[in-house]
Amino acid sequence: MAAWAASNSLVSMRKYTFGEILELPDRFRRSFINSLHGLRPALLLGSRSADGHENLAIFSQILHIGANPPLTGVLFRPDTVERHSLQNIRETGFFTLNNVTEEMAEAAHQTSARYPRAQSEFKAVQLKAQYKDDFTAPFVESSTIQIGLKLQSEMPIDANGTILVIGKIEVIYLPENAQSEDGLVRHHIAGSLAAAGLDMYFSPQPLARFSYAKPDLPLKNIEY
Amino acid sequence: MAAWAASNSLVSMRKYTFGEILELPDRFRRSFINSLHGLRPALLLGSRSADGHENLAIFSQILHIGANPPLTGVLFRPDTVERHSLQNIRETGFFTLNNVTEEMAEAAHQTSARYPRAQSEFKAVQLKAQYKDDFTAPFVESSTIQIGLKLQSEMPIDANGTILVIGKIEVIYLPENAQSEDGLVRHHIAGSLAAAGLDMYFSPQPLARFSYAKPDLPLKNIEY
Repeated sequence: MAAWAASNSLVSMRKYTFGEILELPDRFRRSFINSLHGLRPALLLGSRSADGHENLAIFSQILHIGANPPLTGVLFRPDTVERHSLQNIRETGFFTLNNVTEEMAEAAHQTSARYPRAQSEFKAVQLKAQYKDDFTAPFVESSTIQIGLKLQSEMPIDANGTILVIGKIEVIYLPENAQSEDGLVRHHIAGSLAAAGLDMYFSPQPLARFSYAKPDLPLKNIEY
Repeated sequence: MAAWAASNSLVSMRKYTFGEILELPDRFRRSFINSLHGLRPALLLGSRSADGHENLAIFSQILHIGANPPLTGVLFRPDTVERHSLQNIRETGFFTLNNVTEEMAEAAHQTSARYPRAQSEFKAVQLKAQYKDDFTAPFVESSTIQIGLKLQSEMPIDANGTILVIGKIEVIYLPENAQSEDGLVRHHIAGSLAAAGLDMYFSPQPLARFSYAKPDLPLKNIEY
């Protein structure tokens, strides 16, 4: 790995132009461009239809929109299995996001199969739904980080028909020692996996945490 | 870590409600909510103003919008140092995204300092700008994955004034062996770091890659 970084001129670099990308086989292009930018959060979205059918689906297209108020963005492709989740969110206004740990990886990936709407992915993949306090959408019991959200708005993305759903964070549950004294969530303690593309999963391997950067001041390593 | 996943009821869970989140100290809340969802891509955005000043800034708020055509979303907070990047993109229409490897981590984080617009972060943090073919925005020479983009559209997010900038991928450079035969980008080979929150960095530690999920079919591990 050090060799790459030291000089990428030492390795054989491949170039793809826009035109070449368009001419790639569909599956190759989908896997390529979907995984291109790097690691993303692997999260399970829990929801329930108005008539009580539970749904669980894995998502990695997540944006931190803002902290005050706390807002989360989730990108939906309405033509896939994600449509059940979106229907439920529209019907009830509530959903949950739950982290995926190593023990849950296979079950979490299995939620991407096209189950009928009446069939609960919780049951199909054997992840237990958990209802807490008055929150009406199901959490994933084995997740160490659980977030309850309320639909705030939807933004259609004209370029390709995807939809950015923005949720207001109503409640967060996490282990006390999975948060540093200054607020940072310690995903290496919580065991939160990351995803790349449609099918690849990574464990969180902490490298460094740096102090707030200022011009002409050296960075310090700070505790995580 | 296994103990968490087996039963989070064994550990002390902390609950935060919406009201409690609003009352947290600003810096604690920012660090908490920004890091909450998990790992994100750590990417350096390279740009140049109309009068030739180079800019380099670290970003982790990235969406894969679509593969056909290949589109990338970048979320901007216009009130921060990111505004220089946004100004440059508006002036010229072009920018680059470049992965961050372990050797570049400290320099990449240092780009988040508030340098004057006339000062090049490339020079300030000692990362070399690279111009390739006819692309007018600067790449980062030491990055193993380099993406050249053209501004396609801007979507203001009413909830809090952030802006989702959508770019069309014009060109991609990556090492030949950092891509699997079926298209997946192998970030563990490319050495692409992930980020959580504003200041924490993770190395890519591959865990598993699973086959396409179908109801009632067991998953297989596939090669990465």
